Amino acid sequence: MKLPPFNSPIFRQLIEFKSNTYTYILGCHKTGKAAIIDPVVDTASRDVQILRDLNLDLVYGLNTHVHADHVTGTNELRNAFPSMKSVLCSKSGGEADKYVSNGDVIEVGGLKLEVRETPGHTNGCVSYVEHHLKSIFTGDALLIRACGRTDFQQGNPSTLFDSVHKQIFSLPEDYVIYVGHNYDGILQTTVWEEKNLNPRLTKSKEEFVKFMKNMKLPYPKQIDAAVPANMKDGKGGKN
Amino acid sequence: MKLPPFNSPIFRQLIEFKSNTYTYILGCHKTGKAAIIDPVVDTASRDVQILRDLNLDLVYGLNTHVHADHVTGTNELRNAFPSMKSVLCSKSGGEADKYVSNGDVIEVGGLKLEVRETPGHTNGCVSYVEHHLKSIFTGDALLIRACGRTDFQQGNPSTLFDSVHKQIFSLPEDYVIYVGHNYDGILQTTVWEEKNLNPRLTKSKEEFVKFMKNMKLPYPKQIDAAVPANMKDGKGGKN
Repeated sequence: MKLPPFNSPIFRQLIEFKSNTYTYILGCHKTGKAAIIDPVVDTASRDVQILRDLNLDLVYGLNTHVHADHVTGTNELRNAFPSMKSVLCSKSGGEADKYVSNGDVIEVGGLKLEVRETPGHTNGCVSYVEHHLKSIFTGDALLIRACGRTDFQQGNPSTLFDSVHKQIFSLPEDYVIYVGHNYDGILQTTVWEEKNLNPRLTKSKEEFVKFMKNMKLPYPKQIDAAVPANMKDGKGGKN
Repeated sequence: MKLPPFNSPIFRQLIEFKSNTYTYILGCHKTGKAAIIDPVVDTASRDVQILRDLNLDLVYGLNTHVHADHVTGTNELRNAFPSMKSVLCSKSGGEADKYVSNGDVIEVGGLKLEVRETPGHTNGCVSYVEHHLKSIFTGDALLIRACGRTDFQQGNPSTLFDSVHKQIFSLPEDYVIYVGHNYDGILQTTVWEEKNLNPRLTKSKEEFVKFMKNMKLPYPKQIDAAVPANMKDGKGGKN
């Protein structure tokens, strides 16, 4: 398999417009191994095509958590790349090929994805840090000037506050944060910005908990179909 | 003005969802000077907020061409950053604070944006190359596995073919291409991919011209309002 003549890791950010989910492809330019973070079933064929165009071999399909707003693409992607292993936190309760816990490192050729457990939006939320790329992928734990909601799926604002402060804000301030969703078309942020400007997470823990408990958000549209499918790694969830 | 503690250039890609336009902020982390490429009036206040959050001083608002699918945000941005200069190609016929031609270099602190004229979608289309970032911003000249249409605003497929081959495909193959639009949620490509996989531009020039002339695309929805406003640098175009 002939790899493109690139001298640095391959990085792709992608969008699924229906749920405004951001999906990430990370590829090792030396070995051609790749991982995908938070793929969506609706855009799985697009993602397969990009991986094939770049001659990448997808070895891991990582879900940051059991999603409530879309069905994961990991099952569809495994049909195209049969040796791909889906990955989920051991505390999620969901089905996956491989389970991870805090401190584990997922190797993708020369890339290393460090697992940081960031519960609070759900019990099984994890973020992935790639230190060569100076980047963290936070799923719904931390959003741009916001955070994931804490009113369903074992949500707990006190736990989320600790996760963000201990596991994300402890990174160097110029690390780029790639989130799971943004509805304003903002694609990335940094540790510095969220530490200094996040209107929720610059509050005290007590104020944050109170704020999150008073949000009164609408019931998520896709949760009743998405969560059962995602508990089974997206099986049976194809639209 | 206190800059964030970053050790590398600031780069932000943003989306305006109505016209699926991609906007780019490039900032010098040493001087705090910034440029924005292809801002949209509908998202100008979001873009101002991001620039202010990062303590960046916007010195240039670059339009790759006189847009037909949205009104540029340069006029709105100049209201927030009065010393900002809007930039357009001298061959565009449109109004701007500064005109550029092939080979010019726009300096934004330590960043250098090299102007490459890439006509064919319009007469005044330019792309900007930033060699430190190994990136080119092509507006509508080259799109992902596609290209800008050539059936209005002085469009010429033969000219576009030459622009892409001479000015874009001549770059190193691992340069990242950031385009003006993509409707599938794909946010970036590379010179290598488009040279090898673009279904239109891997054709011969004759076949490409024939293909583009037979496309029979619908009349652009916003062109009658957008082009007159953009000929005046977006003035009078606020929604």
